[in-house]
Amino acid sequence: MNFRVHVLGCGSALPTLKHWPSSQVVEVRNKIFMIDCGEGTQIQLRRAHVHLISIQAIFISHLHGDHCFGLIGLICTFGMLGRTAPLHIYAPPELEGMLNAQINMFCQGLEYEVIFHAVNTTESQIVYEDKSLTVSTIPLDHRTPCCGYLFREKPTLPHIRRDMIDFLGIPVSQINNIKMGAGWTTEEGRVYSHEELVTPPTPARSYAYCSDTRYLPGLHKLLTNVDLLYHESTYCEDKKDNAHKYFHSTAREAAKVAKEAHVGKLLLGHYSARYNDEQLLLKEAREVFSESYLSKENEAYDV
Amino acid sequence: MNFRVHVLGCGSALPTLKHWPSSQVVEVRNKIFMIDCGEGTQIQLRRAHVHLISIQAIFISHLHGDHCFGLIGLICTFGMLGRTAPLHIYAPPELEGMLNAQINMFCQGLEYEVIFHAVNTTESQIVYEDKSLTVSTIPLDHRTPCCGYLFREKPTLPHIRRDMIDFLGIPVSQINNIKMGAGWTTEEGRVYSHEELVTPPTPARSYAYCSDTRYLPGLHKLLTNVDLLYHESTYCEDKKDNAHKYFHSTAREAAKVAKEAHVGKLLLGHYSARYNDEQLLLKEAREVFSESYLSKENEAYDV
Repeated sequence: MNFRVHVLGCGSALPTLKHWPSSQVVEVRNKIFMIDCGEGTQIQLRRAHVHLISIQAIFISHLHGDHCFGLIGLICTFGMLGRTAPLHIYAPPELEGMLNAQINMFCQGLEYEVIFHAVNTTESQIVYEDKSLTVSTIPLDHRTPCCGYLFREKPTLPHIRRDMIDFLGIPVSQINNIKMGAGWTTEEGRVYSHEELVTPPTPARSYAYCSDTRYLPGLHKLLTNVDLLYHESTYCEDKKDNAHKYFHSTAREAAKVAKEAHVGKLLLGHYSARYNDEQLLLKEAREVFSESYLSKENEAYDV
Repeated sequence: MNFRVHVLGCGSALPTLKHWPSSQVVEVRNKIFMIDCGEGTQIQLRRAHVHLISIQAIFISHLHGDHCFGLIGLICTFGMLGRTAPLHIYAPPELEGMLNAQINMFCQGLEYEVIFHAVNTTESQIVYEDKSLTVSTIPLDHRTPCCGYLFREKPTLPHIRRDMIDFLGIPVSQINNIKMGAGWTTEEGRVYSHEELVTPPTPARSYAYCSDTRYLPGLHKLLTNVDLLYHESTYCEDKKDNAHKYFHSTAREAAKVAKEAHVGKLLLGHYSARYNDEQLLLKEAREVFSESYLSKENEAYDV
């Protein structure tokens, strides 16, 4: 089953010709979510050939323009495209009043509901849950209340061994019981254990989005063993003072978090407009954590 | 002296991969103005290599998202770029409260002033004036209060004939008097008329922006003899019903206005996302008014 991150924008606040402001689409088992929604996100969505109105929820990390100015345009466009399914928005509470005022002014007569969920950015809490997935907040340290989001698949059941089912003539009605842990006893009284009838489940996968934030020494505890981590890396170490001053991270710091958390892969992003050559950021990160990669607009990354 | 229109976006409300929402930059004698500011305008400005913080005023036609959702992002970016000069915004009055709320939420600590000027969209009035230019509103007929803008150079003084000045030894101190209408009498008593000392002034030029609007039968009276007219042409005649229903114009109707007003050239724009081939719109317009042209993103048009 798919679990994939499409990067729509991985630049920072100042517009450049190379990058778009922050936005990602996360596809998990055919459900589509968005994280952050900077200006122009709906244009980037067209490029990514994502089916716009399939997006069921949008998670906003914080209320800086490069992470949320595309929201109202996207909401209007959903309306023009005839959306009827509710749209869930998870964001710091201060956004709700502004968003309602914008909708009243610019999108009268929407035929779908926009449901606002205020998130507490100071604690790690599950904010979304369905039968296969949870999304939790990750408290971050930025100039304004800010949290990341952790997408974690729920553990799945083991796989049935089709060969054993056929060999033993086990009826279809019993398969779910076996997946849940039961064994099987033949008419002759021979007992087959649960473990003989299944193979282990596909490991549950996880993706964490951490932007924007200063280096946070305890952050890795919330990220232990995630398969893919996107961690902002606005600067190189040469601008560590800027990173500290503006509550951002360097590429080395992002890699340090990745290493401390034993993640599978690290995606760098939220690049400052000052860097023409992002290989500098990558080089710095790889010195600490070899499985570091540069995120790029219009690329998709499997978790 | 330059008088030029840069088209940043000439699409309509639905985002496409071909067009950006409405925005134009008008350069008049080294002063830089903007008309409309759809989402992504600041990105398009980077492409146009316009010096962002030189924009001294922004004129908003109406409060639909594809004409104003880029405004708050641009205001924030001006702040990050260290702008100190005031920014004047001319728009329907309802925008003021929303814009102030957005600035308070997203751009605290701006080091320049945003000065809001409410425009009356129901009358033609001069809303901006300096020594070389006036900008007037053009009442339009859309689903929400809407006006176009007419940029008109003020008549200039005649050109001094340098050969005559040199021949007669007229002191520099007298040149302005002569430009203003005076003649010259030599020491010998020979009288030279004003007309002998000057050549006619460069004709004053004018540019009119009309978007969004239904075909307006009396509109041409406000546009008589303008050098360049941008008139929305959302649809072809095959969708004339849509044009009427949504308060837009067909290409033929835009051309009709251009012809009635005896304008120099017509620029078509605000294309519906339904047209893959805008030549259809152009063909239709040229059947009525031969000096019709398609506007394109990232192109500049001399007035």
